[in-house]
Amino acid sequence: MDDKLMLMIPGPTPVPEQVLLAIAKHPIGHRSGDFSKIIGECNEGLKWLHQTKNEVLTLAASGTGAMEAGIINFLSPGDRVLVGNNGKFGERWGKVAQAYNLNVEIITAEWGQPLDPEKFREKLEADKEKEIKAVILTHSETSTAVINDLETINRHVKAHGEALIIVDAVTSLGATSVPVDEWGLDVVGSGSQKGYMMPPGLGFVAVSPKAWKAYETAKLPRFYFDLGPYRKTAAKNSTPFTPPVNLYFGLQVALKMLKDEGLENIFARHLRLTKATRAAVKALGLGLLAADDVASNAATAVAPTQVEAEEIRTVMKKKFDIALAGGQDHLKGKIFRIGHLGFVSDRDILTCIAAIEATLQELGYESFTPGAGVTAAAKVFAES
Amino acid sequence: MDDKLMLMIPGPTPVPEQVLLAIAKHPIGHRSGDFSKIIGECNEGLKWLHQTKNEVLTLAASGTGAMEAGIINFLSPGDRVLVGNNGKFGERWGKVAQAYNLNVEIITAEWGQPLDPEKFREKLEADKEKEIKAVILTHSETSTAVINDLETINRHVKAHGEALIIVDAVTSLGATSVPVDEWGLDVVGSGSQKGYMMPPGLGFVAVSPKAWKAYETAKLPRFYFDLGPYRKTAAKNSTPFTPPVNLYFGLQVALKMLKDEGLENIFARHLRLTKATRAAVKALGLGLLAADDVASNAATAVAPTQVEAEEIRTVMKKKFDIALAGGQDHLKGKIFRIGHLGFVSDRDILTCIAAIEATLQELGYESFTPGAGVTAAAKVFAES
Repeated sequence: MDDKLMLMIPGPTPVPEQVLLAIAKHPIGHRSGDFSKIIGECNEGLKWLHQTKNEVLTLAASGTGAMEAGIINFLSPGDRVLVGNNGKFGERWGKVAQAYNLNVEIITAEWGQPLDPEKFREKLEADKEKEIKAVILTHSETSTAVINDLETINRHVKAHGEALIIVDAVTSLGATSVPVDEWGLDVVGSGSQKGYMMPPGLGFVAVSPKAWKAYETAKLPRFYFDLGPYRKTAAKNSTPFTPPVNLYFGLQVALKMLKDEGLENIFARHLRLTKATRAAVKALGLGLLAADDVASNAATAVAPTQVEAEEIRTVMKKKFDIALAGGQDHLKGKIFRIGHLGFVSDRDILTCIAAIEATLQELGYESFTPGAGVTAAAKVFAES
Repeated sequence: MDDKLMLMIPGPTPVPEQVLLAIAKHPIGHRSGDFSKIIGECNEGLKWLHQTKNEVLTLAASGTGAMEAGIINFLSPGDRVLVGNNGKFGERWGKVAQAYNLNVEIITAEWGQPLDPEKFREKLEADKEKEIKAVILTHSETSTAVINDLETINRHVKAHGEALIIVDAVTSLGATSVPVDEWGLDVVGSGSQKGYMMPPGLGFVAVSPKAWKAYETAKLPRFYFDLGPYRKTAAKNSTPFTPPVNLYFGLQVALKMLKDEGLENIFARHLRLTKATRAAVKALGLGLLAADDVASNAATAVAPTQVEAEEIRTVMKKKFDIALAGGQDHLKGKIFRIGHLGFVSDRDILTCIAAIEATLQELGYESFTPGAGVTAAAKVFAES
């Protein structure tokens, strides 16, 4: 049916009506006092969401742009960096670092597995000359729905003392606690179409005082993504270039909604949605790509063995107007991903699981008890 | 009054209701067939607006980001470039070129004056070694409302043979004819919040085959702004990174509206609005910054001598909810700018001029005949 689409992909995520209506307002001048107030309120809300007193800067860019800004503002050509790669996004940050002629060392883990913090510890401890200038990694790897042990890896970075930690929190921010100040995260990048309950188009970068110190001597070329002018203008509730004013209107409303819900409730909700989804998938006898203890709260990657992942996606879209994400690169056709990030409620999970059950029946998959998925999800909701 | 703002600044410009409502739709998956169709339609519309068969690529970025992409994809460190600077934006492209360690030669003209094509001719003719790799200039200089003689300067660039011409058409595209293929413009950058009748958040870059040839050997570092992947994915109606899907919804509608109006009508309308505004300003005895023959069709810069520019802006905003733009940098307080770019009609000019007359009365400015401004504008409309 037209206009009946239900987004259950890990971005873009569903957007609340009040956010959409705010975005539909007539633009106002970006240098007006009225707009300054909106920027000011957004900046405060972003700090709250990031649990930080540091600046959180907003760019007209996707999350990739925000991460690129987070990398190129604090490093110089030839700088040695460690990049964690256990999926599509970790892989991408390695490519960004290479494009800027950094001395890149990639620490890999198989897609579906988390990065091993020990490998970071070994490299960092062996670096007596303090040549490693940054460790770049993805917190929640969206392509596999695996969460990396950022807390432990960050502890090893802190023990090194010199290296900055640059974190892709694109699908962890607003789903999982990312305590920027408590952990001392230097650079944290994210994008609006994820936990923010917003359409895509805005990128965010949180920057620590230690990173600003590195900025002073960092020599990689940049202009649009030069964070210095963003910092300077943010202090005056302004921006260096024309900001996407309508997206700011939406961000103001979305951040208010998030504040009203409260950080603890937001994180508990995402955890509950994840547990319910995984319990349902297990009850249906479908495989899970990631183990329970490394499951991201943003999405669940399902790896069915007796039925084609792409067939499930096709029927779900065609018959029930539910968009699920496929696998990327070599996981294409092997997994499908259920997004439960952002403006997603318990009811949405019940809906999605019920539709998956109906789809499995349609596809003639017989190794499950009809109703078992919904029942398993309902049990999680009843108990939490 | 709340929600009563009328935007008469040269960006963001007013947005039609049907565009705003399209932007307010629920996002859909950016890798879906439905979204591919939208991308395809937008890409076709962009080519039409640019009068080109070349690719016109869309970035999640402001116009500055689009121009930076247009510069850094086709040049290598140390390349000699000529940059025209007769205002805030020309100045900015010089800074971008310097940030990327190009060998930058600035050709200036006083703010309010056009660039002198002869100065370009001299430099280009003297360059027997063909060291000049690009000429970068702003077509319509928004900060002063002056239009540069792109056609003539481009002819000199063509005579040189080697250099690319890289054009900031941010406030000329959709207001004035920019015949990309006919003139052989290599790179043309623009932004959505101008002639496109859209909110800010999208940047556009048109790229010629000659520029793509230069791309193959260009060595400046880039990732998010690397236009190669944009070109490759555009051919498949896709994008390299998550696009601002809601802004695309709006762009699709806006481009359709522009097509329905037709290029000749759009350009004639902007010319008429410009003539009416200038006639009115003259009739009111207020000064104009730019001479008639170099007036941009995007905006009119008024340089009042007997009354404070900022006082006019303040009263216009406070009493009549009309936003006018001020001067930038050393023109701050010396001029105000009336934007008549994008979704602006004859009626809007009458409204704005009537309010300026009322404001002048309020400020006790006596050297004008009340009604003279509106009458002069009406005369232009009656005659065209």
